[in-house]
Amino acid sequence: MMKNGNAVIRVVVLTISDSASRGEREDLSGPAVVAELAGINPEIVATEILPDDRDRIAARLRHYCDSEAADLIITTGGTGLSGRDVTPEATKDVIEREAPGLAELMRAESLKITPLGALSRSVCGTRGRTLIINLPGSMRGARENLGAITRILPHAVSLMSE
Amino acid sequence: MMKNGNAVIRVVVLTISDSASRGEREDLSGPAVVAELAGINPEIVATEILPDDRDRIAARLRHYCDSEAADLIITTGGTGLSGRDVTPEATKDVIEREAPGLAELMRAESLKITPLGALSRSVCGTRGRTLIINLPGSMRGARENLGAITRILPHAVSLMSE
Amino acid sequence: MMKNGNAVIRVVVLTISDSASRGEREDLSGPAVVAELAGINPEIVATEILPDDRDRIAARLRHYCDSEAADLIITTGGTGLSGRDVTPEATKDVIEREAPGLAELMRAESLKITPLGALSRSVCGTRGRTLIINLPGSMRGARENLGAITRILPHAVSLMSE
Repeated sequence: MMKNGNAVIRVVVLTISDSASRGEREDLSGPAVVAELAGINPEIVATEILPDDRDRIAARLRHYCDSEAADLIITTGGTGLSGRDVTPEATKDVIEREAPGLAELMRAESLKITPLGALSRSVCGTRGRTLIINLPGSMRGARENLGAITRILPHAVSLMSE
Repeated sequence: MMKNGNAVIRVVVLTISDSASRGEREDLSGPAVVAELAGINPEIVATEILPDDRDRIAARLRHYCDSEAADLIITTGGTGLSGRDVTPEATKDVIEREAPGLAELMRAESLKITPLGALSRSVCGTRGRTLIINLPGSMRGARENLGAITRILPHAVSLMSE
Repeated sequence: MMKNGNAVIRVVVLTISDSASRGEREDLSGPAVVAELAGINPEIVATEILPDDRDRIAARLRHYCDSEAADLIITTGGTGLSGRDVTPEATKDVIEREAPGLAELMRAESLKITPLGALSRSVCGTRGRTLIINLPGSMRGARENLGAITRILPHAVSLMSE
């Protein structure tokens, strides 16, 4: 039932953070995401650090989807309620189909740890054959949210290639 | 509080499946949905098998809503991540009001059985006085998801006629 | 981590109800919302009773957001499946960013009390620096839903001023 258990998954990790993009803060969440993915046999195609700019985020998402360079794009950061947080909006700008169950599951699992998990506005969805997943920006939040869905990601990606 | 317990509910069941629509596969999920509904006193107005074609699905949904022929339309199939799965998009094309709580409840209950329940992209909502519910395409998934909401459907349909 | 614990939160409470707006029914839910908020140090900037009119609801939401008069707008009523219920649609008309986790948490908590909690179509989101929360119209439903998120509202509002 769990297909694609051993296939390589091509992954792009985008850290969305004004301060990290300016080099004022070290990006800990991007590497934490990469580490968390170890169990699903990823090929990390690219990692990037982008500012909280809706158009720039959307442009990079489109680039990796439309060039068919990635099966999976994971963003970390920009999912909260601060004025600059626009990653979900950039994601909605590019996805063709929403996958709300993945975001719901991440939030439901996160809520078991902290009530603040409800404040993540993460969106998940597909463009072409690429699945896009938003994670919160904190290293801990990114890890916890991703951990909630890691084991079903191989099956999800496998379905998209049908 | 649970109104409409005994009123007849007029139901249309649409099976969305390329292979079943071509007669290459028997439609087991449509009849399973009809059987699952036995407890809510349904009048099955129509059952149809449609291919995974967004415009055709949307057209049939519109037809049954706008002719006021059904209180409830239940679709099964086309809610996953395969490239052809577009039932939620067709549903969004026609609904005027979304009812996210029904889809959330179906996914939450499904997750108690399988983590793959998070991959259902089901959408629920209303057009005119008709409630539209998406279910997954597998017989088991359709049954489990519908079972999560069956007991509140009479009340939901009753509210819509107010 | 829970910031803004002691800051004053400027709140507008909008009761959405045809019958209450015509004076045919006493508004019990609006005052219940105000009472429920006591723990978060609110300054009640305004309370209004509006009919179930999408454009009028949207206009009042825009007014309070764009004049920067409120940190938080709480609506009660119009979230169900009756034909007149359009508060979520009015809310979607004005919000710039959706916060689905708040609505999901309210419904998940409500489901622990009644399966009818799934029928709430509440939407939460932000416009400018104002957070908008939809609650059901019944006094009990409004209280229960708000109670599910009250303790994280100060942090949510605090984040928005960053």
